[in-house]
Amino acid sequence: MNVAIIGLGKMGSAVAQRVQQGGHTVVGFDPSVQEHNTITVVNSIEELAQKAHIFWLMVPAGQVVDNVINQLLPHIQEGAVIVDAGNSKFTDSLRRAQTLQEDNIAFLDCGTSGGIHGLKHGFSLMVGGDKNVYQKLEPLFNVIAAPNGYGYVGPSGAGHYVKMVHNGIEYALLQAYAEGFELIKNGSFKKHNLDLQEITRIWQNGSVVRSFILDLAHEVFKDDQQLTNISGEVAEGGTGKWTVQDAHKHDVPVKLIEESLNIRKWSRETGGNYATKVIAMLRKGFGGHAVKKIDES
Amino acid sequence: MNVAIIGLGKMGSAVAQRVQQGGHTVVGFDPSVQEHNTITVVNSIEELAQKAHIFWLMVPAGQVVDNVINQLLPHIQEGAVIVDAGNSKFTDSLRRAQTLQEDNIAFLDCGTSGGIHGLKHGFSLMVGGDKNVYQKLEPLFNVIAAPNGYGYVGPSGAGHYVKMVHNGIEYALLQAYAEGFELIKNGSFKKHNLDLQEITRIWQNGSVVRSFILDLAHEVFKDDQQLTNISGEVAEGGTGKWTVQDAHKHDVPVKLIEESLNIRKWSRETGGNYATKVIAMLRKGFGGHAVKKIDES
Repeated sequence: MNVAIIGLGKMGSAVAQRVQQGGHTVVGFDPSVQEHNTITVVNSIEELAQKAHIFWLMVPAGQVVDNVINQLLPHIQEGAVIVDAGNSKFTDSLRRAQTLQEDNIAFLDCGTSGGIHGLKHGFSLMVGGDKNVYQKLEPLFNVIAAPNGYGYVGPSGAGHYVKMVHNGIEYALLQAYAEGFELIKNGSFKKHNLDLQEITRIWQNGSVVRSFILDLAHEVFKDDQQLTNISGEVAEGGTGKWTVQDAHKHDVPVKLIEESLNIRKWSRETGGNYATKVIAMLRKGFGGHAVKKIDES
Repeated sequence: MNVAIIGLGKMGSAVAQRVQQGGHTVVGFDPSVQEHNTITVVNSIEELAQKAHIFWLMVPAGQVVDNVINQLLPHIQEGAVIVDAGNSKFTDSLRRAQTLQEDNIAFLDCGTSGGIHGLKHGFSLMVGGDKNVYQKLEPLFNVIAAPNGYGYVGPSGAGHYVKMVHNGIEYALLQAYAEGFELIKNGSFKKHNLDLQEITRIWQNGSVVRSFILDLAHEVFKDDQQLTNISGEVAEGGTGKWTVQDAHKHDVPVKLIEESLNIRKWSRETGGNYATKVIAMLRKGFGGHAVKKIDES
């Protein structure tokens, strides 16, 4: 398949490399990337449109997605497929699918999880849209995903909806572990300075709380468990907020997800605490998200 | 080593079998077990005390532990080791260690995680107490634990303290996933009846939320994702409550853990919701905990 990857940040670049390694022909485009060490890049959307019939978008949610689609539209052929693999809001994805259908351009919304580890291990892909189009693109999903890590979840919007909920869950999982780690550090055994590197190692093997996030926590604590010079401010994208909004709309209680969001807001207002420092480091571990260092001087 | 296992419920029985398979000599005791399909059982504590020098307790937390220790004491020799591997309160474990020290009986507190899957895969063991005693018993921990799944975490009480926090985290992790699953079922895509078996399968492979608990959720949803006839009442042991108490005492915020506990309380008062039905099923999956079925008649 001839695949164009639009957006060559950490995630887009990883996807492009996996597609190329999978034997497909890849061409990349990113207005801020002139060359790439493994992927052929072009300098215009127009040139890109001539070289591919599948367009894989890995760009920030919101207006950027509409802009890219609008730039693509005059140049692509009927029968082309646009895959939005970013963290778009599901209602936007539904709207885009409907609009593009009028131009006979297929559109799939694809939630992508795995972060920077996805390059090596493969991503988890939740795909929404027309099932026939999904099936045509399976060879592509197959090389981007971890083994057994992709699937069709429902009609247009469902892919991004499921990814939105995935992220809501993730917010609460991170906060849950972080609270426990803070209690181990600052609770009744504070003076004994229990070793979180050792405790997470034990938990990784055989415990009920073992997980990918716990594996990352173990890596964080190998380097540093005081986190003295790490800022406890935790950023967020839109997915957590949308999760809570959708839950309110449909009267589904999501108290932990909501509270996790409130705590992140609080962390940005106050600088946070040990728990939010842990979350900041975990987000760096899986997403390559920036962590603010507190100047030691 | 000659090891006595006291308490032959699901967990004690699994531990006993792993110790025996590991080449040690095992004798079991449980007032409600007359015979066991793989382990030699005796009918009195007195007989047990003659046949072992390590006493591994896998009994309910609280008075039962004190009763067993008091029954053992007149019969065991100096240099014997008692390991409390249940979910005792860490303050009780510290008290017991101090009392037994006066009688020259060593005492270790060992948090045990892994549930009914531990028989096959091995448990995760967090051990507190005298480090020299811990080291003498390492061959035993080694056969009970999953590979690399045991360790010394600190002085007396630390093993049960770390397990208490582990359980607090577990409460919040279960609730976090369950909220997300309920939103997928009852949020904006309700009418499309998205398939949680398929979604959890995708998430198991490559996603940031992959975990042992997610694996269990996938197993639950393979069988049933409507959960119509499952009660949403979720029971609890003491560990979650103790986690919150310790956090309050030391001014450590554990909002998600606390909220998870409140939701379990609410579930028992009201019958709960879809999310707490999921939690009830997950607890059955890892712990073999009973789930109330709603009579279909």
